[in-house]
Amino acid sequence: MRMVDIIQKKRNGKELSDEEINFFINGYTNDEIPDYQVSALMMAIYFQGMTPTETATLTQAMVNSGETIDLSAIKGHKVDKHSTGGVGDKVTFIVAPLVASAGVPVAKMSGRGLGHTGGTLDKLESIEGFNIEMTKEKFINNVNTYKLAVAGQTGNLAPADKKLYSLRDVTATVDSIPLIAGSIMSKKLASGADSIVLDVKTGSGAFMKTLEDSVALAEEMVNIGKNLGKNTVAVISDMNQPLGFEVGNANEIKEAVEILQGKNVEDLRRLSLELSSHMTVLAGVFNSYEEAYKGLEDNLKNGKAFECFRNLIKAQDGNVQMIDDLSQLPDSKYHVEVLSDSDGYVSEIDAESIGLAAMYLGAGRATKDDQINHGVGISLKKKIGDSVKAGEILVVLHSDADNPSDSINKVKEAYTITDQKVEPNTLIYNVIK
Amino acid sequence: MRMVDIIQKKRNGKELSDEEINFFINGYTNDEIPDYQVSALMMAIYFQGMTPTETATLTQAMVNSGETIDLSAIKGHKVDKHSTGGVGDKVTFIVAPLVASAGVPVAKMSGRGLGHTGGTLDKLESIEGFNIEMTKEKFINNVNTYKLAVAGQTGNLAPADKKLYSLRDVTATVDSIPLIAGSIMSKKLASGADSIVLDVKTGSGAFMKTLEDSVALAEEMVNIGKNLGKNTVAVISDMNQPLGFEVGNANEIKEAVEILQGKNVEDLRRLSLELSSHMTVLAGVFNSYEEAYKGLEDNLKNGKAFECFRNLIKAQDGNVQMIDDLSQLPDSKYHVEVLSDSDGYVSEIDAESIGLAAMYLGAGRATKDDQINHGVGISLKKKIGDSVKAGEILVVLHSDADNPSDSINKVKEAYTITDQKVEPNTLIYNVIK
Repeated sequence: MRMVDIIQKKRNGKELSDEEINFFINGYTNDEIPDYQVSALMMAIYFQGMTPTETATLTQAMVNSGETIDLSAIKGHKVDKHSTGGVGDKVTFIVAPLVASAGVPVAKMSGRGLGHTGGTLDKLESIEGFNIEMTKEKFINNVNTYKLAVAGQTGNLAPADKKLYSLRDVTATVDSIPLIAGSIMSKKLASGADSIVLDVKTGSGAFMKTLEDSVALAEEMVNIGKNLGKNTVAVISDMNQPLGFEVGNANEIKEAVEILQGKNVEDLRRLSLELSSHMTVLAGVFNSYEEAYKGLEDNLKNGKAFECFRNLIKAQDGNVQMIDDLSQLPDSKYHVEVLSDSDGYVSEIDAESIGLAAMYLGAGRATKDDQINHGVGISLKKKIGDSVKAGEILVVLHSDADNPSDSINKVKEAYTITDQKVEPNTLIYNVIK
Repeated sequence: MRMVDIIQKKRNGKELSDEEINFFINGYTNDEIPDYQVSALMMAIYFQGMTPTETATLTQAMVNSGETIDLSAIKGHKVDKHSTGGVGDKVTFIVAPLVASAGVPVAKMSGRGLGHTGGTLDKLESIEGFNIEMTKEKFINNVNTYKLAVAGQTGNLAPADKKLYSLRDVTATVDSIPLIAGSIMSKKLASGADSIVLDVKTGSGAFMKTLEDSVALAEEMVNIGKNLGKNTVAVISDMNQPLGFEVGNANEIKEAVEILQGKNVEDLRRLSLELSSHMTVLAGVFNSYEEAYKGLEDNLKNGKAFECFRNLIKAQDGNVQMIDDLSQLPDSKYHVEVLSDSDGYVSEIDAESIGLAAMYLGAGRATKDDQINHGVGISLKKKIGDSVKAGEILVVLHSDADNPSDSINKVKEAYTITDQKVEPNTLIYNVIK
């Protein structure tokens, strides 16, 4: 078998066999097939696409290229959630304890990575003492005891995907829906869950800008999951503005805990319940979506979900007083108000610009050696559809500098105010199973 | 400027600017841009094509990547001929002296390369003593004196093309008409001719199998020539069977010299006159194709073209007796006849198989260290349209082995005999200027 023949076959629009896909992934992982042949194949795939069978085979080959996590010591049906990424996305901190409160084990492994704000682990480390380092035994024991544990991701999961993604990034071959789907799913499948719920973001602040592309990606991922024997549900949710009101680290934890304590932040609470309902139905603890939604809403109201979160923090050495009294969470030296210049209605809040503004304040990491400043961030005071008057506060910047002009300018750029009344955004566009 | 942006632009079907193409070719030539980005770009070009302007700019950039040959010391308008390659193609040995006989200077630089038979230089070396090594001064002096000289190609011409071609070969990106056109033309343009005549072969034995692709390639090359200020004419000629009757080295020289001595081998003589007519019109020594054709035909009949060839052989130390008495040219130990198994008409002679049969006899080079055996080769006795009886000779193999069974089998494979009468092939399909 020769790689050049595989490239040519795909270039000519033919379906690659399982043997050909495995040959290519194994050869690439072992450095036997050079980058220049793989990038040509990636570009051919960009143009010719992949069939559902090819995509599933590619994903399985990437899973097989490295270690897989064995969660069989955890009792019950494990459901994992994955988000394609957005600004202000703190649903994990609500969904994980909420699902745990229904008796579904949540073994959350997360990374840090680069971004406008920290990752799941960074945000949790806003809570004093919170520790994500533990033995595998303690991790599994905690999940079995508290139904919930969060740890740093270890192990060499899907190294073929890592290598391929780095290559695609510099050869303009990232934007291929089967390749994106395979990349995401290979990491999820290597993580050992029994079922998967995907939060596919759509809109100006998402990786997928159009609903059409978002649906296509969701369908591809659901198809991969099913082909490889994992029940998978995808929810398509809005990312035309940040989710909720808080963007940062400690302030995102604060907003999530407020929901767990019973507060209603419409979009954030609604999406968390949506995702949790699908997860608990897949886990078999509820018979229907409607039943799940009602049961989980009860667990927000009756404090069970918050209790699960408190147990998590305690079990991992976090200072639980900080979440009982949210004013103890880290905050910045200054609160800088950004005011509206005009009267009207908020018609757009570019999530990307809000993310950059948060990053300029120190909330994120541009390179992997950067330190996260947990106290800085952005509190939105107006969202799409809100009326606003000139001089009214659009956002409050939590900043350690007294005049963070780059962030102020970015935030002003992000907001569009119009004369006409604006309808609030749709939050959930579609559910694909 | 970043290579990844250039790849993405082409991937999205946009036209690359001159700056972007030069950036890419310069960076690649200097090893600043890695293979894996270039192969992705090549695949994007395979799918998205290139505009005439892009193709011309790419070609010029490849010319600029290395040395160019300065022929300005040669008096008169220099016209070069290039063939896309076929089996039994010895027109150079007729065209070069024929054009020279009309007073047009022919400064022929050729390579050896790999193939079923030797290249131009190898074939000429069938003539005892013929020497292709000479100083640049002697080469130019010979062209000025005799209107004709043949030398080995020296100098680092179009190194970007060489590097690109090697990469395309292993990444399934060879079959792109603008890239093929740019590759051929970059080498021709670096060779310093004022005008170019292209013999674009079409058919089963050619690189371009269909007339449509051959016309597209010819148009692309003519366009590049014109864009870069060189008059260019392309003739599309048949390669559904070998050209003429001889395939090898010494026997090809013999057949060419017979034409120069006045013999009429229909396809070979006709194509040589066609190409020479366009060349001499471009050089301005004739006013029209018709006038050129008649004048050149006269020079075949009156011996002027043969005289030019004799002068070439003498000037380059070759044994001129061998061409005055062609029986003195090298020949093989054995002449092995391959007979027809059936009565009928020849409907196909697969040129590729005939070429391989010649290679098995030792006429060509599979690796660059192989030695050419000048005396071996194949003499076709039947061509497409000929009637044949069972037991009649199809070909004679010039072989140094008494039973060259591989070659015999290949030749039998090459011939198709049918019951129905078959029309002879069209020789010249099209002329593109």
